[in-house]
Amino acid sequence: MKVEGRNSVYELIKSGKEIEKVLVQKDLKDEASKRLINVIRSHRVKVQLVDKYIIEKESTTKHSQGFIGLVSDYEYFDLEDILQATENKDGFVVVLNEIMDPHNLGSIIRVCECAGVDGIVIGKDRCASVTDTVMRISEGAVNHVKIAKITNINSSIEKLKDNGYWVYGAEVGGTEIYKQDLTGKICLVIGGEDSGVKKLTKEKCDGIISIPMFGKVNSLNASVACGIAVYEVVRQRGKTE
Amino acid sequence: MKVEGRNSVYELIKSGKEIEKVLVQKDLKDEASKRLINVIRSHRVKVQLVDKYIIEKESTTKHSQGFIGLVSDYEYFDLEDILQATENKDGFVVVLNEIMDPHNLGSIIRVCECAGVDGIVIGKDRCASVTDTVMRISEGAVNHVKIAKITNINSSIEKLKDNGYWVYGAEVGGTEIYKQDLTGKICLVIGGEDSGVKKLTKEKCDGIISIPMFGKVNSLNASVACGIAVYEVVRQRGKTE
Repeated sequence: MKVEGRNSVYELIKSGKEIEKVLVQKDLKDEASKRLINVIRSHRVKVQLVDKYIIEKESTTKHSQGFIGLVSDYEYFDLEDILQATENKDGFVVVLNEIMDPHNLGSIIRVCECAGVDGIVIGKDRCASVTDTVMRISEGAVNHVKIAKITNINSSIEKLKDNGYWVYGAEVGGTEIYKQDLTGKICLVIGGEDSGVKKLTKEKCDGIISIPMFGKVNSLNASVACGIAVYEVVRQRGKTE
Repeated sequence: MKVEGRNSVYELIKSGKEIEKVLVQKDLKDEASKRLINVIRSHRVKVQLVDKYIIEKESTTKHSQGFIGLVSDYEYFDLEDILQATENKDGFVVVLNEIMDPHNLGSIIRVCECAGVDGIVIGKDRCASVTDTVMRISEGAVNHVKIAKITNINSSIEKLKDNGYWVYGAEVGGTEIYKQDLTGKICLVIGGEDSGVKKLTKEKCDGIISIPMFGKVNSLNASVACGIAVYEVVRQRGKTE
């Protein structure tokens, strides 16, 4: 959803809603615009300075005054919703640890939906949100899998464990994924593009599983790694059923 | 590699080298420029019209005259190179059937390198080439796996079969991938983003294997699908060794 114009963007910032970013035209020199940019930044909302022609292209009202706020329309679930929905079955949850690239997030949601994942948990900070871009990349899969946005990944992992889940972090240096029993209630923790699964989060996991590597580069794209890991869970489940 | 200026771009086009595309400044009105655009197009090389500031940003010589040709530096292998290198081992080859998105191609090369794939075969037509973008996305993996660019995918498949390879197309409606023996010399055929594996190509395959789907969207990104498929080959090989 787009919110355009100085006043509307100001109200949007004040509302406390989740805002993807605000596109701001470069070289706005008037005082009102400068003040608003300061307000946006002081609320820790991302300001993206762009050329005038981009503002003109993105604007639907043509009265943007150089300000277009981008808001996510997605309504998140709670972790409780996911736990309830999987109370009486072998639930399958994927926790994302600082996936920051919207393309990766969209692609991860897409493969999780295909694999029948019951819920995806993403962190409030340092993680991409479900924006229009993510929805598009996911090919609409966002509408068919429960996504929860939570403040603290580690306490969510505790809660999942309390509810009978086995939690495995996908990361280098662990048990080869094919040698780990991944049946029952399973939660996979997928690390971010650069940082992998965080140390504290790793310590919360029941184990670390690794995709074997045979090359020289030996680093996988986060969505590809996620695909390989969730489908190994699918394979093991299929075998025991 | 960048080739700049009207004359240099003209010579480049005449050379018959593989050209990714030519960036051309919008609104060039002189006759010489118009003539050159026609020459480029008549050689079926992609012309991308861009704003002047992009030409200025991309130009290294600052004498581009509004024309910058982008050429791939990658030197392809022959299918023979791949066959020779795998003569006395269980070779693993991936054939790409019309993967057109450079991001997907880069990501596919990356996961193939990690999985220890011996060679990747891509078609001359309707397939992305190994450009600078592809190299970057692959994180350098292009330098560690043999990539062959061939005119006819189907005759390459025949040649692979003649050399002891079992060829499986990854596509919907086939044997579940986990139920297919994928040991020995294996060639996987991965279909394009929209079209999948082509009908004629499918007929050349020894079998069709499918990734099971449990969602509503049920379409995987080509690089994620490729990752899941190549790693199932890795898993089966690891078990029998």
